[in-house]
Amino acid sequence: MARSWVNSAERIGADLHLELAGTGGRRAALIAALREAVRGGRLAPGTRLPPYRSLAADLGVARNTVADAYAELVAEGWLTARQGSGTRVAERAEPLRHPARGAVNGGTSPKADPADRPTPAPRHDLRQGTPDASAFPRAAWLTSYRRALQQAPNEVFGPGDPAGRVELREALTEYLARARGVRTEPGRIVVCSGFAHGLRLLFAGGVLRGPLAVEAYGLPFHRELLAGAGVRTLPLPLDRHGARVDRLGRERAVLLTPAHQFPTGGPLHAERRAAVVDWARARDGVVLEDDYDGEFRYDRRPVGALQGLDPDRVILLGSVSKSLSPAVRLGWLVLPERFVGGVLAAKGEREAWASVLDQLSLAEFITGGAYDRHVRRMRQRYRSRRDRLVAALAEHAPHIEVTGVAAGLHAVLRLPPGTERSAVKAAARQGVALDGLAAFRHPEADMDAGDGLVVGCATPSEHAYTAALEALCRALPPHAPGTRPSKS
Amino acid sequence: MARSWVNSAERIGADLHLELAGTGGRRAALIAALREAVRGGRLAPGTRLPPYRSLAADLGVARNTVADAYAELVAEGWLTARQGSGTRVAERAEPLRHPARGAVNGGTSPKADPADRPTPAPRHDLRQGTPDASAFPRAAWLTSYRRALQQAPNEVFGPGDPAGRVELREALTEYLARARGVRTEPGRIVVCSGFAHGLRLLFAGGVLRGPLAVEAYGLPFHRELLAGAGVRTLPLPLDRHGARVDRLGRERAVLLTPAHQFPTGGPLHAERRAAVVDWARARDGVVLEDDYDGEFRYDRRPVGALQGLDPDRVILLGSVSKSLSPAVRLGWLVLPERFVGGVLAAKGEREAWASVLDQLSLAEFITGGAYDRHVRRMRQRYRSRRDRLVAALAEHAPHIEVTGVAAGLHAVLRLPPGTERSAVKAAARQGVALDGLAAFRHPEADMDAGDGLVVGCATPSEHAYTAALEALCRALPPHAPGTRPSKS
Repeated sequence: MARSWVNSAERIGADLHLELAGTGGRRAALIAALREAVRGGRLAPGTRLPPYRSLAADLGVARNTVADAYAELVAEGWLTARQGSGTRVAERAEPLRHPARGAVNGGTSPKADPADRPTPAPRHDLRQGTPDASAFPRAAWLTSYRRALQQAPNEVFGPGDPAGRVELREALTEYLARARGVRTEPGRIVVCSGFAHGLRLLFAGGVLRGPLAVEAYGLPFHRELLAGAGVRTLPLPLDRHGARVDRLGRERAVLLTPAHQFPTGGPLHAERRAAVVDWARARDGVVLEDDYDGEFRYDRRPVGALQGLDPDRVILLGSVSKSLSPAVRLGWLVLPERFVGGVLAAKGEREAWASVLDQLSLAEFITGGAYDRHVRRMRQRYRSRRDRLVAALAEHAPHIEVTGVAAGLHAVLRLPPGTERSAVKAAARQGVALDGLAAFRHPEADMDAGDGLVVGCATPSEHAYTAALEALCRALPPHAPGTRPSKS
Repeated sequence: MARSWVNSAERIGADLHLELAGTGGRRAALIAALREAVRGGRLAPGTRLPPYRSLAADLGVARNTVADAYAELVAEGWLTARQGSGTRVAERAEPLRHPARGAVNGGTSPKADPADRPTPAPRHDLRQGTPDASAFPRAAWLTSYRRALQQAPNEVFGPGDPAGRVELREALTEYLARARGVRTEPGRIVVCSGFAHGLRLLFAGGVLRGPLAVEAYGLPFHRELLAGAGVRTLPLPLDRHGARVDRLGRERAVLLTPAHQFPTGGPLHAERRAAVVDWARARDGVVLEDDYDGEFRYDRRPVGALQGLDPDRVILLGSVSKSLSPAVRLGWLVLPERFVGGVLAAKGEREAWASVLDQLSLAEFITGGAYDRHVRRMRQRYRSRRDRLVAALAEHAPHIEVTGVAAGLHAVLRLPPGTERSAVKAAARQGVALDGLAAFRHPEADMDAGDGLVVGCATPSEHAYTAALEALCRALPPHAPGTRPSKS
């Protein structure tokens, strides 16, 4: 797994030895290695980094991997990117650390600096993927937790059931049927730590085998996790009806985001939903349904989960990471019966993984109605944020089209061709962390969704959202860059 | 990963198709498959199972794997074993289900039977490995949880730090230094879900490579996890000073239980402790220290962690699974700095795994002194249980020697040669679930620790312990079986 790279003194001014270790994916490993090199002083402030192409060749990774890693570290504040001068180590390389990377503190000092607690977030975090952390329903959750802890029989504190607590699986059976049209039973649900853990169980655990068809645009993180498990992913093109499931080839499994294509934003067309289930039946295949934000639909009733069409052909993966908080670390797999044993074996008989008390607390939270209340409240909040984003753009950047806003926690801002990368950099200069559409494109995709910014509306707290929108608008290209658009 | 087995009608009375799926190890997979076959009715009550040897040959697994799987299912009540009639499917195959296997309920009925909640434990559970579930400090834990939840900054509910919350890593740094002589800093600690998760991160994550030297006796579960990650384990013989570390060969890593060899019970001798660190320095090797019950020493001050001898050569793995409860799902890796990046990459940048709220609660629990108070209380309780075990044996089975009782949550009852397997079966007939020493022996070990029963003193609740001891004493061979000992 480890790779090393000694690059020439001309390029970086010092021999540098990068180790890309672990199975978290090359992008993650490269980010970690570069961050470590900057933090440890091996890459001095102001040092110019090699062009994507050279570093990619040196390390034997894709050019996009390097570009993504640089962009991430720019967003985090470790690097800076300026037109014409390339990517350099930031002069003061610690300004914008993301909470998820607070770890790097501890390494430098015997005792982490109290001033680093809590680790500061980026000035404006408009990355997709996380809910509003300030909205966690502390009081209601504590009530559920207390009740769960007080009612728990003693055996709760013994060895855990690898499937997860039956109380939670029962609560999920009822909730998912009601809210998402899922047809299942407690014995077909396996509780896990979140979507990624579910995917690991299925593939690293040997329950399913690659190749896996995926949407041409999706989370690189998922593709990297799969690649780490030795699973080849084959991109399905997207069009305005969603994934082109008619293009499925010899694969036996496909991963889709039917409720709300991530990141481009539309639901999978009804005919495609039926077609992919037919495909699975005909080929003894299986559809993995990433139901990542199925609860957050604004303009009409949520479309039910694909799983309801054929519970024996669809594996639904869900979690509370978007609806409640990723800090809770609870997700679930809703499985056809034939996969249950394999998933449990992959999970490990003595490894419950997910906190049992949190499982009981969530069961209580759901059955007592607090989960529904919270989702309703957050749906209103995110809808209002979407409306504010649309309004801000209409006022300050009316030439920018916004798409994918009928549901979910993010929107896509369509940009003129060729402007995406510079827009991401311009955003970073405004202190705005976000990603361009290209960051989500499968390297082997044979289609291109065009230039765009993926804007997460949920991450900033309520009071910080307006400032984040203003900073975003300042970063947007006034018109097509360099030239005036022909119509103006 | 999947294997199938169609056995002949003569042996089981029906064609049976067993799938050993997943990476949880073959033993776990076989247990799951057999349990499923019984539960689903494919193996009818009374059906005689094939001899170990035949089934092992059919499945291509070790004979011990089959023997272990049968023994486990006997203990759980799915199978029965009677002298002379082999192993059969129990007539009423659901009497003694273990809490950890409650999952199998859900699968049979759309809604798990409320009468199954909580799932009943074995009548007398004397298996090692879990603390007294009735002793979980609910009130103190809830106080810590409430305080943690109320004090938590909002960013807690955002994406997690894959290293774990810095509050917990700081609390562990201080606690482990004080209680276990561990020398580290928060930046070298990675929080995980428990020991097994830590081991997975190191090996499945590609941070360390096999072969790995292990003690000739240890948890099969750990060996299976490692085998699933493609790691070959090489057994080190044990003698009265612990593992023969002078026998280390070309391996670069060794896994030890220095404080209290599991399961035989002695501490690693001081000279061996020094020798293994010298070995690691000389060979650029690493020692994995499984500090599984370092807090529970009764007769003198706990021996400090080996890690303190050389923090750059020892990885310490610890958890609260024995000290508090496996339900909390929190453990830690204390790492030499060079491994931190790799472990974090293996963990996955967006996968915190462990409940963040439980992490904060544990930090609060430790720093507020509640953890020390709980450990002190449990030390007294377990010491008293050990004393009661020793007294019961002195009264009812004075010919049985008890060893390994200076520390920990289990004891070893030495048996006359050749009597172990029948003693385990006799215990099962008395409703006592426990394991023989053979269940822990590495299949390639070139030494034998003799016959013995590994008796967990911690699992029964206080009120059930006396009855469990009585049942155990009834199951013990009165003297050497068949013949009277020569001295009587």
